[in-house]
Amino acid sequence: MSKVFLSMSISLDGCVEGPNATLQNMGGDGWSDLHAWVFQQRTFRQRLKFGEGGETGANDRFLAEIFDRIGANIMGKRMFELGEASWPEEAPFHTPVFVVTHEARAPWVRPGGTTFYFVNDGIEDALRRAREVCGGKDIRICGGANLALQYLNAGHVEELVLSVAPTFLGGGKRLFEGIDRSAFALESIETLGSPQVTHLRYAVKKR
Amino acid sequence: MSKVFLSMSISLDGCVEGPNATLQNMGGDGWSDLHAWVFQQRTFRQRLKFGEGGETGANDRFLAEIFDRIGANIMGKRMFELGEASWPEEAPFHTPVFVVTHEARAPWVRPGGTTFYFVNDGIEDALRRAREVCGGKDIRICGGANLALQYLNAGHVEELVLSVAPTFLGGGKRLFEGIDRSAFALESIETLGSPQVTHLRYAVKKR
Repeated sequence: MSKVFLSMSISLDGCVEGPNATLQNMGGDGWSDLHAWVFQQRTFRQRLKFGEGGETGANDRFLAEIFDRIGANIMGKRMFELGEASWPEEAPFHTPVFVVTHEARAPWVRPGGTTFYFVNDGIEDALRRAREVCGGKDIRICGGANLALQYLNAGHVEELVLSVAPTFLGGGKRLFEGIDRSAFALESIETLGSPQVTHLRYAVKKR
Repeated sequence: MSKVFLSMSISLDGCVEGPNATLQNMGGDGWSDLHAWVFQQRTFRQRLKFGEGGETGANDRFLAEIFDRIGANIMGKRMFELGEASWPEEAPFHTPVFVVTHEARAPWVRPGGTTFYFVNDGIEDALRRAREVCGGKDIRICGGANLALQYLNAGHVEELVLSVAPTFLGGGKRLFEGIDRSAFALESIETLGSPQVTHLRYAVKKR
């Protein structure tokens, strides 16, 4: 049975995007500090076509396991727009990707197995369509913060994967701002620490 | 050389106090979920005179090591007031405790080695006085959130010890609200996971 999980890098003060985000200042001030760890991993470098090299330790294995379990991705419109401006031609997902948006647009097929589908009927419809094509693998909610919170509060997220970077963003977008606090039972299922990043995995049950 | 460290339990959404906190609703809604882990530890139960029993595993050892390194505590006025209403006669610190407050009050000596000193000249003076009496051991900033942030932004905190509870508080007081984000270099120095709580220790350097 496919599991729906949310995986994002998050600052120690709970932000997934820094202040002053624009298309030119992607992810806001401090975004590169937030994601510094991921750019160092071999698995990520290969996917983004950054060339050879990169770390092959526990963080890389953690990342590779995440990628391996994904049968479909779901993201918000803004995350897509930022990515569209920066991904290589072979977009780094290699799965169907459902973009929740008000824009009507034909599917965008990329070399390497990534196809973006633009879903205009909300988060439930995106999830239904992701389930149809994920081949029994898991479905990742990529973000941004607003979309992630919608899926959380609707009770669809079964697992949280937070990669906590040792940095503060001091504003911008908080991942859990507006969470329905009493609605969840969480249990820590994995903790993996390192100087660059600490991964926290939680099983999430809606009460 | 004494180290100044901040140690607090924090929710997954970054809060150290829940919404609707009053003297009657100590710590706000959800506060007991935030601290559930600590009430289960033998070291804590002994200190609070809760009687025998309690866990003796990795979380208890972690807690005992924290207590053992403390030569003096510093806390804010509200945290003191909440504690004054709930601590046993033998208050659970067994060190000098400096309370940063505008209230002038004579030292309050408790059995068991805890004496509360009421400091009216601000955080720098409290820290100076703590250094004088800590006997070379470390100085703990206990909170609340406002006082912790003052010490952080002033560059006095050399280590963060965050005990992340698997719960959301959904508001109340965020520990890092108002942090001077670009002022710090953080490095993870220890991660200890368990189903009830995940401890994150960071070395903090002011840039």
